[in-house]
Amino acid sequence: MIAVLAGGVGAARFLEGLVQVVPPEMIVAIVNTGDDMVFHGLHVSPDIDIVTYTLAGIVDPLQGWGIRDDTTHALSMLATLGAETWFKLGDRDLAVHIRRTELLRAGWTLSQVTDAFRRALNVGIRLLPMSDDPVVTEICTPVGWLHFQQYLVQRRARDEALGVRFTGIERARPAPGVLEALCTAEVIMIAPSNPVVSIGTILAVPGVRDAIIASPAPVVAVSPIIAGAPVKGPAAPLMRAVGLEVSARGVAACYRGLIDVLVIDQADADLADDIRASGVEVAVADTVMRGPVEKRRLAEATLVAARTAVRRRSY
Amino acid sequence: MIAVLAGGVGAARFLEGLVQVVPPEMIVAIVNTGDDMVFHGLHVSPDIDIVTYTLAGIVDPLQGWGIRDDTTHALSMLATLGAETWFKLGDRDLAVHIRRTELLRAGWTLSQVTDAFRRALNVGIRLLPMSDDPVVTEICTPVGWLHFQQYLVQRRARDEALGVRFTGIERARPAPGVLEALCTAEVIMIAPSNPVVSIGTILAVPGVRDAIIASPAPVVAVSPIIAGAPVKGPAAPLMRAVGLEVSARGVAACYRGLIDVLVIDQADADLADDIRASGVEVAVADTVMRGPVEKRRLAEATLVAARTAVRRRSY
Repeated sequence: MIAVLAGGVGAARFLEGLVQVVPPEMIVAIVNTGDDMVFHGLHVSPDIDIVTYTLAGIVDPLQGWGIRDDTTHALSMLATLGAETWFKLGDRDLAVHIRRTELLRAGWTLSQVTDAFRRALNVGIRLLPMSDDPVVTEICTPVGWLHFQQYLVQRRARDEALGVRFTGIERARPAPGVLEALCTAEVIMIAPSNPVVSIGTILAVPGVRDAIIASPAPVVAVSPIIAGAPVKGPAAPLMRAVGLEVSARGVAACYRGLIDVLVIDQADADLADDIRASGVEVAVADTVMRGPVEKRRLAEATLVAARTAVRRRSY
Repeated sequence: MIAVLAGGVGAARFLEGLVQVVPPEMIVAIVNTGDDMVFHGLHVSPDIDIVTYTLAGIVDPLQGWGIRDDTTHALSMLATLGAETWFKLGDRDLAVHIRRTELLRAGWTLSQVTDAFRRALNVGIRLLPMSDDPVVTEICTPVGWLHFQQYLVQRRARDEALGVRFTGIERARPAPGVLEALCTAEVIMIAPSNPVVSIGTILAVPGVRDAIIASPAPVVAVSPIIAGAPVKGPAAPLMRAVGLEVSARGVAACYRGLIDVLVIDQADADLADDIRASGVEVAVADTVMRGPVEKRRLAEATLVAARTAVRRRSY
């Protein structure tokens, strides 16, 4: 069984490759929920939805989030009625949040809702929220602490990021199955997601980091930074905010002591020796996931890197 | 000022006529909320929405409810996720329920939400829910007591109706403005709505019936029954369930002691003497509201009937 720590778009695309080379029932994705937010009274779980929609084959391929060919009629009416509509929610997408909210209010856990939805949408891999308890990723800026979605979507990451915190993280318990997956996995993968606000959040859930370090399985991460920039999203300012260089070297520094090998893009091959010297093994691959073929090759390269890795984690 | 007791489609069309002959700011509609129901965790107020959408000019003209040219993408996804979708809710329509639910949870009253929405949709007349407290209209059938929407929409009125009750009515207070409107109105109108489950519910709110009887204003009702049948809706079985004849005569019997004059359709002119003999004055008009002209004429006829009415109410 393979356990994959996952954020949003990058992780979803990585998992699309992985299901081409590993039977989906052998994969468990542990998904960030620090970005979750209530809009219009509805519980939205952006990363869980991105992964679910992508693996269900219904994601909007251009945005990487939301549902393909979705309409926004409800959002227009919400605007007419005076609601804030800076977070774009399509009509089919809204149904997911409506139903999730209804079930949560009826006493279901986020894990149960997530599992029911991935089954309803014929997603073969198991999806676990990192926690069923509320955790809120917040960004410190000159205008104050902002919810991650306010920072990224409402204010379009225009504020200087000065720090990151995960409110509620001390009381968050790993969702049922998370620690079991990490303990029993044959391979642990860290998807090419934001190391600070996607993977960093999952790792901050009490017990998760320790379970990874204690696992006998090889741990392999894929760098989301290629040639000094992320493919998508606000990794650059947020890595800088926590003192990391925006490079594959910065990703390696972030995961040092936790992973055995880092898969970096061939564009960053010149950093390999430097990263190895810092104590992290390196595999070089084409990590740009243009289409199904590139996604499959990256999954294969990540599996090979894991299987040939020498244990480098600290205890 | 004119106060109008209102149910759904019939009342909405009647009000469309009334706003052609009376400035909208002179009209207050007191609307039935016994049909309200929670779907997918969202508070739906069918009669309030029908009246609001109709007066806003956005109602689906064929159905008489819902929003014109609305899509049902969210509902399809809700069905995929396992929700019951027998109550048809369009995407734009859903936005109204989403926002209403959010505001109610934030502590707004249904009156405040209703007023905000009619203003946002440029409806000039004031709309008051009959009560801000929950009242549930239920129909007794051989399979048990059913919520009105279950009886009408889910089971398509196929069960024999044996009785009607308004659960919660003893504790329901008239919404702010309801009694004031009835006390200060120059004319009180009862729209051509279901006398049992639309008007009957409003009249059952403690204080409403007494306020109407005590008002010095003329009280005029328009019969929703034409030639022995309602234009729309389940009035026939529900009138029978409470022992009323399904005719303009049955409507008169229902409102006897409460109204001064009943407007009946010309198709029922032969019943006029009989109704008068029972103690209810009668005005005969064309009550079939085919288009704007007929709606305006019915409003005019109703106003004339009110102004020429002799007080017939009992104290």
